[in-house]
Amino acid sequence: MERLRGFRDIYPEEMRGREKLFSSAESVSRSYGYEKIDFPSLESMELYRLKSGEELVGQTFSFVDRGGREVTLVPEATPSVVRMLVSRKDLSWPVRWYSFQKFWRYEEPQSGRLREFYQFNADLFGPDNHAVDAENISLAASILDSYGLSGRYEMRINSRELMNLLIAKTGTSNLPGALAVIDRLEKTDQETLLKDLAECGIGKNEASGLLDLITTPASDGNLENRIISVPGVEPILKRVKKTISLVRATTQSDVVLNLSTVRGLSYYTGIVFEAFGKEEKTRSILGGGRYNEMAALLSGSPIPAIGFGMGDVVVEGLMRKLGIWNEARTSDRVYICTSSEDYMEYAFSVSSLFRKSGIDAEVDLSGRGLSAQMKAASRSGSRVAVIIGEREYGSRKVTLRNMVTGEQQEIDVSNAAAQAKRSILKR
Amino acid sequence: MERLRGFRDIYPEEMRGREKLFSSAESVSRSYGYEKIDFPSLESMELYRLKSGEELVGQTFSFVDRGGREVTLVPEATPSVVRMLVSRKDLSWPVRWYSFQKFWRYEEPQSGRLREFYQFNADLFGPDNHAVDAENISLAASILDSYGLSGRYEMRINSRELMNLLIAKTGTSNLPGALAVIDRLEKTDQETLLKDLAECGIGKNEASGLLDLITTPASDGNLENRIISVPGVEPILKRVKKTISLVRATTQSDVVLNLSTVRGLSYYTGIVFEAFGKEEKTRSILGGGRYNEMAALLSGSPIPAIGFGMGDVVVEGLMRKLGIWNEARTSDRVYICTSSEDYMEYAFSVSSLFRKSGIDAEVDLSGRGLSAQMKAASRSGSRVAVIIGEREYGSRKVTLRNMVTGEQQEIDVSNAAAQAKRSILKR
Repeated sequence: MERLRGFRDIYPEEMRGREKLFSSAESVSRSYGYEKIDFPSLESMELYRLKSGEELVGQTFSFVDRGGREVTLVPEATPSVVRMLVSRKDLSWPVRWYSFQKFWRYEEPQSGRLREFYQFNADLFGPDNHAVDAENISLAASILDSYGLSGRYEMRINSRELMNLLIAKTGTSNLPGALAVIDRLEKTDQETLLKDLAECGIGKNEASGLLDLITTPASDGNLENRIISVPGVEPILKRVKKTISLVRATTQSDVVLNLSTVRGLSYYTGIVFEAFGKEEKTRSILGGGRYNEMAALLSGSPIPAIGFGMGDVVVEGLMRKLGIWNEARTSDRVYICTSSEDYMEYAFSVSSLFRKSGIDAEVDLSGRGLSAQMKAASRSGSRVAVIIGEREYGSRKVTLRNMVTGEQQEIDVSNAAAQAKRSILKR
Repeated sequence: MERLRGFRDIYPEEMRGREKLFSSAESVSRSYGYEKIDFPSLESMELYRLKSGEELVGQTFSFVDRGGREVTLVPEATPSVVRMLVSRKDLSWPVRWYSFQKFWRYEEPQSGRLREFYQFNADLFGPDNHAVDAENISLAASILDSYGLSGRYEMRINSRELMNLLIAKTGTSNLPGALAVIDRLEKTDQETLLKDLAECGIGKNEASGLLDLITTPASDGNLENRIISVPGVEPILKRVKKTISLVRATTQSDVVLNLSTVRGLSYYTGIVFEAFGKEEKTRSILGGGRYNEMAALLSGSPIPAIGFGMGDVVVEGLMRKLGIWNEARTSDRVYICTSSEDYMEYAFSVSSLFRKSGIDAEVDLSGRGLSAQMKAASRSGSRVAVIIGEREYGSRKVTLRNMVTGEQQEIDVSNAAAQAKRSILKR
């Protein structure tokens, strides 16, 4: 009886690392004023047909339910989030929402890609200006920084509007096709790229020029001069540069203009961004952008929107490679041992006192002898053992044993929690 | 474009209440030494056929995936948890695991029942004694107590072994049938119950006697005397009573023997328990029991096990009825206003300083005038506004305004976070 391919069982060891990832993303988001929402894991197929085109729909877990509805396990957050947004008329702007849910895609499982994964999403709706763009990207950077990744990733920023102008200059009208080719840039050789761009109606010279431009690093002072002469570029570039400056005010990590970052999805309308590991080659750790038109698809009127998604698989893999993935269990617990089953009710009362004082307490329930229980206490990694023998039971006391120093102390039960806390804090 | 029937969109207001529910259940569980796990939301259909029988399978979201596998959206936790347990050979006992995931059942949506719901589950594997039973039930009670429900619910405890003896005494060999009838006791009239028990091969006199026994409250001193004479009952009753005593050592809420609590699922082998609201009639808030045989179905050898599940729907409904559901957003935040877009980079730096000091900071990104921003600050419910005008920008200062008292103070940016914290703490 095995689990399905591309799915995971997550045991406590691994969960501890993941919980830190999850709770950190959530608390950083709250510190930016984002609030949590939750949406169904099953949605009507129509929601994706409207927006994603058949390609994504072909990679979903979709079926007809017992009531004859065409439904699909959610493959991404954005359509659901926008559905929630447009079905409320009483929201005041800006709306800052985040969510942390499972998503499913029927793809071939491989490194960094599973059929079931968690994804964190954070979106901001309402105003549309460079500060809004910057805040959403800053949040993404701050989350990665909170993981200890500060300086170890690069936040690449680009603009779809900018790319549209640069691509249009080559004479093609097949913008989506050209963007799709550029999206594959890092995985494809020059010859194939030129061939694919030719299929989009871009001649060899124009294609070479475009690829050369796109792969010029932002650190090359000439890049700006080369693109600013293209009609329409100046105000867009100005906004992107202001955005980058604001993001840099909140992170020590690299924030750079990168013309090859275009994002695969068709719905972006403005700024786009992706984070990549610097030392270790990774898939995109997170990615997002502005998508001002999606609300119009669902409700008829557009609502300015920017957001990003971060899956759990790539970031976990990166942190493991960098040696900063932490699965350690805290030792801030007490382990309660009793020398006889007759003292178990007293042990339960004592455990309650500890827990009410904010100290985690594990009771040995095995019914074994005291020395076997003390061995288990030691194995458990708890910092303090609480021993209840005949004497302690008779006098409503407990013995606290510091498992690191071996010091023991018989103490009144009313003071036990406070004393254990001191023992735990004294490292 | 609507969501599916029986599914929920959860907006921030409601989410706040739910987050307290979730995080409280998790921290209480950790305080008992339980550790979090996570399992797939999609499992092979076989996992449920083995264990649940066709009834539950008929209420699932099941389908054939693109690879031809019969799969189902998980309708309950236990089979997956036991699958995870038996596929690890290196675990040391006891194993205490909890999980908090979504589940799906294709049932008619109604009060307290949805097609998609969250359920908290906590299981303990390994030892099998009354203290283990008591700890798992204590955890359930402590979670409800942490919700402010202390004294407002009743924890009903029974034993399948006990019921098997009482039912067998009527002469029937159809134990599962009789248990199923008793499980419907509260929703069914006496006449129907007698008819249904007759179909299980229990004559009218025996059935009346059984129903009378089952509905006698534990507070009736005669109940024990009436059942203890049944051969085999004494040791079982003794264990149940010891379990109840231990649970009472950890909660002020009512913990009672209740012979009509049998739990619907077929896999229980020992103690069973359910919690019900006292003032408000509810469905079962949570329920569980001992199921020592399930591991054997999956791996060939039994592993003693006890656990419970608590859905989010019933407990939320109860707390709302009792007026203890809390959706308030904390005001422990600052709201940052700028008198010009030129100060936005400074505002972003200041916001980072606040966040690094553990203070949530919302930046006004609207580009509106300062007075409109101050109105937004007031509406936001933040306790402190941080104002950045020309003077503050020039001198690397900020003005802190306590939104309750109206007090203002211009202060060096390096002291701003500490001062804001004092303002927030001073209620």
